Amino acid sequence: MSIAYQRFVIDELPKGPLEERHFRLEEGVLPSLDAGQVAVRVLLISQDAANRAWLQGATYRGAVQTGDVMPSGAIAEVLASEDPAFAPGELVYGDIGWQSHAIMPGAALRKVGPHRPLTHHLSLLGVAGKTAYHGLFQAAGIHAGETLLVSAAAGSVGSLVGQLGKLKGARVIGVAGGPEKCAWVRDTLGFDECLDYRDESRPLPKALAAAAPQGVDVYFDNTGGPILQAALFAMREQGRIACCGAVSMYDGAPRPGPMGVPGLIVVKRLTLKGFIVSDYAHLDADAEHELALWAKQGQLHMEEDILEGLEAAPRGLIGLLAGQNRGKRMVRLAPDPA
Amino acid sequence: MSIAYQRFVIDELPKGPLEERHFRLEEGVLPSLDAGQVAVRVLLISQDAANRAWLQGATYRGAVQTGDVMPSGAIAEVLASEDPAFAPGELVYGDIGWQSHAIMPGAALRKVGPHRPLTHHLSLLGVAGKTAYHGLFQAAGIHAGETLLVSAAAGSVGSLVGQLGKLKGARVIGVAGGPEKCAWVRDTLGFDECLDYRDESRPLPKALAAAAPQGVDVYFDNTGGPILQAALFAMREQGRIACCGAVSMYDGAPRPGPMGVPGLIVVKRLTLKGFIVSDYAHLDADAEHELALWAKQGQLHMEEDILEGLEAAPRGLIGLLAGQNRGKRMVRLAPDPA
Repeated sequence: MSIAYQRFVIDELPKGPLEERHFRLEEGVLPSLDAGQVAVRVLLISQDAANRAWLQGATYRGAVQTGDVMPSGAIAEVLASEDPAFAPGELVYGDIGWQSHAIMPGAALRKVGPHRPLTHHLSLLGVAGKTAYHGLFQAAGIHAGETLLVSAAAGSVGSLVGQLGKLKGARVIGVAGGPEKCAWVRDTLGFDECLDYRDESRPLPKALAAAAPQGVDVYFDNTGGPILQAALFAMREQGRIACCGAVSMYDGAPRPGPMGVPGLIVVKRLTLKGFIVSDYAHLDADAEHELALWAKQGQLHMEEDILEGLEAAPRGLIGLLAGQNRGKRMVRLAPDPA
Repeated sequence: MSIAYQRFVIDELPKGPLEERHFRLEEGVLPSLDAGQVAVRVLLISQDAANRAWLQGATYRGAVQTGDVMPSGAIAEVLASEDPAFAPGELVYGDIGWQSHAIMPGAALRKVGPHRPLTHHLSLLGVAGKTAYHGLFQAAGIHAGETLLVSAAAGSVGSLVGQLGKLKGARVIGVAGGPEKCAWVRDTLGFDECLDYRDESRPLPKALAAAAPQGVDVYFDNTGGPILQAALFAMREQGRIACCGAVSMYDGAPRPGPMGVPGLIVVKRLTLKGFIVSDYAHLDADAEHELALWAKQGQLHMEEDILEGLEAAPRGLIGLLAGQNRGKRMVRLAPDPA
């Protein structure tokens, strides 16, 4: 079986803002399979701010190099397999990257469960959903009656964090960019408030003081930067901050951190806890069970923002970093198999 | 009984570096006692970097105002009492401030235990000792074989933190200013290494990478600023940072925080925990018991840096903020009572 592929590789590692020129489209034909390998065709590619962070050098994963396929999670269908654990036609998830077809070690893949729509495995039950679930319930912890602040509230993780906070009885304040997003976060997602960090007539520190006059108990930080700084000033004593990402800071040179570090951390006795979703992999089954249940009960709204075709991947990620997405962004390469 | 007092009040709240002109010496005679009040003469005044932080506005204590007596912990002898809990001649501890004699509510005082020398109640068994003990054992946690980094290693808290780390089997790296302090930290206190952050021929990030090639498990931060930044880059994954103070940042205008906040917190999944000593007051008895025991066994070296006379208090604190002290600084107003 001769399988043609298209894929995006890193043509140049970005030093400033990510641009389409940093990627190069390659075409070719997959080689034959060795023992333990699986040939797949990609159906859905996940787009996550973390993809950009991986280009900054070694993180919790090795450094991405020029010439590497651009990494990202993806759902794919098995076409052929030399790994007895996988059979043609099965659906799998793995860090396959931006490519239409690929040969993967079977050990790097896992099967996708029966929950449908398939897109939910990249959103609600994927990294976004688990990041929201583990980050809010494990890294930060949340209690009924507390005030929860969430940045990137219209994003894939933030939109879920706020809804999970409401489910647990917290008062939820979102931060998002622009009046349309803010209205959507309030009206569709059910946050108590949503503050527009781009509204120059109402700077965030002031808006936050008005929205949370008693202060913030838990801040779920997806952004870092000036929003983290405003949050530090708004935190209550003994407040908790889950550090989930720093989307404001991935795309450019290293910048100083927020004022109030470490002064406000000491004075207010704050806890900041960085985490990534795999730190809580031992609780993934709980996350998937509860998130699927709440979605089925209509208690969680999972917005998906789906672009079409592999060629959309670069501009999709660039747009995500600029905050153009609403909900979980992904790229569809092929319709769901029957 | 007519009791004359001298005291320093805040003449002007500092906006930049603290100077002697920010204080004004007042003299007067104490009024008579109301019910519940105690008249004391001060023997020893504690000098702590936190005193400066209190002048920046409301913190975990109310804002200090112009005209207030400069606050600080102190040990005093009871001269007269209208509180049945206290009798003349007893020794007490309280936030009495920079004054020779004072009238205090009995409820704001507690008796000083039998351990001697008396100075230990402001050092080893005082805020410094308990801050080191609770911060290392509770806020951060330390395990044998881990690498512990401590800033302000020649200071009252840092000098104890490193010794406690050695007692628990950690490898201990200090950071201090100047070769003399560093030699003392290594040779007298027994730290494994001490890095001179003022040594321009060997910038701290480089020196730290060489001293801790496997990275730092626990950083006990007394300084904030560039040392915190260097530590963030040197931390291992899942590392813990106890945020105890920010002496580098008290004395001046608010400045940006360290680079790497929150990016490195996320990528390395660090935990930063701010604390003040009273958060762990329920464990104070344990701290006092163990610290006194270790001192008696000769396992802890408690350096004390004692200035003489109330008039030394302003320059004592100013010098402390500039890192001029070695060990626990205090001001003696009168010899220990027989």
